[in-house]
Amino acid sequence: MQLGIIGLGRMGGNIARRLMLNGHTTVVYDRNAAFVENLSQEGATGVADLPALVAALEAPRAVWVMLPAGAPTEDTITVLSGLLEPGDVIIDGGNTYYKDDIRRAHALLEKGLNYIDVGTSGGVWGLERGYCMMIGGDAEVVKRLDPLFDSLAPGMGNIPRTRDRKSDDDRAERGYIHAGPAGAGHFVKMIHNGIEYGMMQAFAEGFDILKTKSSESLPPEQRFDLNVADIAEVWRRGSVVSSWLLDLTADALASDPKLDGFSGEVADSGEGRWTIEAAIEQAVPVPVLSSSLFARFRSRQQSTYGDKMLSAMRFGFGGHVETPKK
Amino acid sequence: MQLGIIGLGRMGGNIARRLMLNGHTTVVYDRNAAFVENLSQEGATGVADLPALVAALEAPRAVWVMLPAGAPTEDTITVLSGLLEPGDVIIDGGNTYYKDDIRRAHALLEKGLNYIDVGTSGGVWGLERGYCMMIGGDAEVVKRLDPLFDSLAPGMGNIPRTRDRKSDDDRAERGYIHAGPAGAGHFVKMIHNGIEYGMMQAFAEGFDILKTKSSESLPPEQRFDLNVADIAEVWRRGSVVSSWLLDLTADALASDPKLDGFSGEVADSGEGRWTIEAAIEQAVPVPVLSSSLFARFRSRQQSTYGDKMLSAMRFGFGGHVETPKK
Amino acid sequence: MQLGIIGLGRMGGNIARRLMLNGHTTVVYDRNAAFVENLSQEGATGVADLPALVAALEAPRAVWVMLPAGAPTEDTITVLSGLLEPGDVIIDGGNTYYKDDIRRAHALLEKGLNYIDVGTSGGVWGLERGYCMMIGGDAEVVKRLDPLFDSLAPGMGNIPRTRDRKSDDDRAERGYIHAGPAGAGHFVKMIHNGIEYGMMQAFAEGFDILKTKSSESLPPEQRFDLNVADIAEVWRRGSVVSSWLLDLTADALASDPKLDGFSGEVADSGEGRWTIEAAIEQAVPVPVLSSSLFARFRSRQQSTYGDKMLSAMRFGFGGHVETPKK
Amino acid sequence: MQLGIIGLGRMGGNIARRLMLNGHTTVVYDRNAAFVENLSQEGATGVADLPALVAALEAPRAVWVMLPAGAPTEDTITVLSGLLEPGDVIIDGGNTYYKDDIRRAHALLEKGLNYIDVGTSGGVWGLERGYCMMIGGDAEVVKRLDPLFDSLAPGMGNIPRTRDRKSDDDRAERGYIHAGPAGAGHFVKMIHNGIEYGMMQAFAEGFDILKTKSSESLPPEQRFDLNVADIAEVWRRGSVVSSWLLDLTADALASDPKLDGFSGEVADSGEGRWTIEAAIEQAVPVPVLSSSLFARFRSRQQSTYGDKMLSAMRFGFGGHVETPKK
Repeated sequence: MQLGIIGLGRMGGNIARRLMLNGHTTVVYDRNAAFVENLSQEGATGVADLPALVAALEAPRAVWVMLPAGAPTEDTITVLSGLLEPGDVIIDGGNTYYKDDIRRAHALLEKGLNYIDVGTSGGVWGLERGYCMMIGGDAEVVKRLDPLFDSLAPGMGNIPRTRDRKSDDDRAERGYIHAGPAGAGHFVKMIHNGIEYGMMQAFAEGFDILKTKSSESLPPEQRFDLNVADIAEVWRRGSVVSSWLLDLTADALASDPKLDGFSGEVADSGEGRWTIEAAIEQAVPVPVLSSSLFARFRSRQQSTYGDKMLSAMRFGFGGHVETPKK
Repeated sequence: MQLGIIGLGRMGGNIARRLMLNGHTTVVYDRNAAFVENLSQEGATGVADLPALVAALEAPRAVWVMLPAGAPTEDTITVLSGLLEPGDVIIDGGNTYYKDDIRRAHALLEKGLNYIDVGTSGGVWGLERGYCMMIGGDAEVVKRLDPLFDSLAPGMGNIPRTRDRKSDDDRAERGYIHAGPAGAGHFVKMIHNGIEYGMMQAFAEGFDILKTKSSESLPPEQRFDLNVADIAEVWRRGSVVSSWLLDLTADALASDPKLDGFSGEVADSGEGRWTIEAAIEQAVPVPVLSSSLFARFRSRQQSTYGDKMLSAMRFGFGGHVETPKK
Repeated sequence: MQLGIIGLGRMGGNIARRLMLNGHTTVVYDRNAAFVENLSQEGATGVADLPALVAALEAPRAVWVMLPAGAPTEDTITVLSGLLEPGDVIIDGGNTYYKDDIRRAHALLEKGLNYIDVGTSGGVWGLERGYCMMIGGDAEVVKRLDPLFDSLAPGMGNIPRTRDRKSDDDRAERGYIHAGPAGAGHFVKMIHNGIEYGMMQAFAEGFDILKTKSSESLPPEQRFDLNVADIAEVWRRGSVVSSWLLDLTADALASDPKLDGFSGEVADSGEGRWTIEAAIEQAVPVPVLSSSLFARFRSRQQSTYGDKMLSAMRFGFGGHVETPKK
Repeated sequence: MQLGIIGLGRMGGNIARRLMLNGHTTVVYDRNAAFVENLSQEGATGVADLPALVAALEAPRAVWVMLPAGAPTEDTITVLSGLLEPGDVIIDGGNTYYKDDIRRAHALLEKGLNYIDVGTSGGVWGLERGYCMMIGGDAEVVKRLDPLFDSLAPGMGNIPRTRDRKSDDDRAERGYIHAGPAGAGHFVKMIHNGIEYGMMQAFAEGFDILKTKSSESLPPEQRFDLNVADIAEVWRRGSVVSSWLLDLTADALASDPKLDGFSGEVADSGEGRWTIEAAIEQAVPVPVLSSSLFARFRSRQQSTYGDKMLSAMRFGFGGHVETPKK
């Protein structure tokens, strides 16, 4: 099957590669010509701009946009929608806010264009492991694109089947689902990322306790000098917390158990934030997911105005002096 | 009435002063001779050691220990218990863990000594405003010491009476209560401090949002340049959050609205921690009180091992590079 | 001064009354004719619809809208904006989302109308205590309306002045501020409510520990039978947590220490939710404010799907059986 | 190798079985004679009391105690310590508090007895998958018992090796570690369980949002009717949150997507609580781990005293009426 791909960064480039490895043809574009050139040498049809991309595709066209959420994606889709023909489909594989999907799908439908949102998990490992995909949009269109999704997905691999699972639809077992109408794909991916934040923070807090158990601020008889690399390793084998995130943690600790290579300033992305907003809209208590987001906010500040205010109050009622940082 | 006082720091010294202002006599000791000398000049009987203190008091003696919780208090009480006579009473006015009170009360009772724990709130303002006291121990002994508590307490002042309040015991309205048996006084004070942590953190977070609303990291049209000193001031008048902590906040912001005089590293004391442990023992969910404690822990660290681990995982699955702090 | 008031519920009715007590005249409307009739008998000019209200006011008119946030306020302002003349001012005294204020102010300005947002704290007590007001909008217009704000505000009363406070503007000390341009008033009020949530939850958690300390699920020697009404009362006198919320708590506990009159299902309003969204937009960690909101969400559910999932996992890995509620 | 096993419940019985399958011999005791009888028929030497167990073992003896933490384990070890001879070793495989291990190890050492604490993860799946073990105690003794641990552990299986891992000690890769001196094994296991709580709660909150996204309390255009069983299934394939807990979740949702089989009342065990206490002792902020514990506390209550207090305050300042549950 033929697919146009816009955005050939870490994700988009590998999506093109994985599709070509599976016998599909791709027409690729990136504003960085070097990326286009590289993929052309690997068998893709490289083009120099969006009109050329549209011209190179056979109708009904399918174009996968793999760009940062927000303006880059929005602007590209706006331009594309002026070039494509009724019956064509735009696939947004990025991390778009699901309410933007809903809005866009409505607007594009008026032009006869189809819009599919694909939440894509797999990161830099996707080329090798395949991509876990959560797809929103019209069921018929999703069905038409099935050969692409099937190739991008991990497949069943050697992961055991779930006991008692009964379903006529085996797509989930092969690594992709049609989650619902436009926006549903990115909604499910958004929640996936929210959970990811929580799991990561659970490991972070647990290992923080393990690490500080050797702190010299504790009395000697209360200290343990624990081997965090070994602990991550052993938990990979038969423990309840075994997970891919733990595998990655074990990787990191094997070569740098003190994690000196990292600053401790942790970025966050839209999905973590939108998850909390969705929870609030639905009145769902999410103390763990929100705490995980807040820990990242806090990691990027040396001190907060709020903390200073605590000191100011303590000085006010108790005469406690907590002086400025030197 | 006559009272021995051990520990003449910020709290103990002013307790002696407030009692003398109200016609009581005090016998005072501190290992810092200068503190003893100062209070002697204000009318107290200064003594040079614990035996002298005990000798200077008439039986049945009452000795108020106002020292840091833990070893200083414990050791002093141990020595005192060897010097006092049956019927005497030791008052622990510090911030002792209530389980230590229970243990001590039992041990001292075997020697015929009484033990009273007094949770004392009021800080540096107590001399002027009076001390809010939560008292644990034998009811008869508490009654015997009533003249002291009555003088130390703030009294009704101009604080309006609570509607519908019906009680034969007006001590609470005058600023002190007999909370229950040994330990109950410090237990109630401990919870008081736990609540204090939560209220402080609520203000800290709220003002942090107000302050960062002027941040240049926001788009200009989303910014407000708010006057935090005026906001604290106006909330003192008729708003739902009016409180003594807000008064102190308004004090601090009036002279230093950026709070540059503070480092943002905030200490915590035993009571905040013990409150969480009590909640866990009783299976009470306390997300606010615990979050307040954790915010203080976090304020004292530049970065955490846990945060670095988040970055390590992010690098592992997504190739995100979060480099070391320079 | 003359003011039109739309919405004569708990807040709007008393605002009219407090203004009239201070020599102002009011023209009042409510879709409930009985409310209009009542206030007419107290001296207001009652009208039957919005055109009549506009007709009864002298230009430049000032109309205070005191309705539930969202559609009721929005629709009323839309109608009003078609009736008023350039130079007139609409005051939104409700709990509008501050971004709606910004939008509205821009739209109304195109018609030559002024828009003022007033965050109003004081609840059912405002008639007697006065209203604490946080005002957003054009400075000149706020100045023009000053006689109204001055009368509605509590004034300095017997609340002591803040030490070190230096300001040419004494409005904060009298209970109202001009916080900034349109939206700033409701923004500050929103944060006020966020803080209020946090303080309330701090008290709730602390008293929950005090209450459960007498629980029969604890071993007898660990129990204290604490008098929560006395504890609330004593903390009002000289303690660090003294506050209006504590006064209200003491009121409630004086007549119903077990709080049997309440279900434990707690509503939340927009402001608590918007506060968290503002914090997320500004990357401010707000664990206490968010926990307070989530506690209310949780209070309204008997069990959550999430909790059931925990049980399902526990059954999965450990064979733990947690059966359905009867 | 020969091992005595006391406690033949879910864990102890299967430990005996897995050892026998691997060629070891066991001498087994449980106060429930039926359990002893069952294992005897599977090849174990069943005994009727502790003296018989000790008599049936060759010196130096090794006795694995697999009982509930607290009194059952403590009492059994006390009796055992009176029966064993210098050089013998007691293994506590349960969920003992690590400070109890430290105390016990000291006490037993005075009698010449060795004490080994083994944190054992694997639950009902251990017989088949093997047990992940975290071991504390004297290195030589742990070495002597290695044949047992080697047989109980899962081994490398088909789990890929960690990149860059360099270690002379391959025990972690085979599923067990010598974590440190007495107590270190249970300490590491305790933190494991703390992390487990956090991960579980992250999934619970995320799926709660997914589930309530179909709630009729949302406007129709904001709803998605998501298939939670498919979502859990697809995330098992290539997503970042893939984990054993997710596998179990998929199991549960495959047969009961509404989770109607569960009440939503979730138990907690000592380890979750002790993890928070350890964090507090070490001043580590653990918002996620504590929130997870508190969610379980909350799940077991229909309403809290704290929630009622919130309603009482809301009534106090705003006249909001939140009536008793019917």
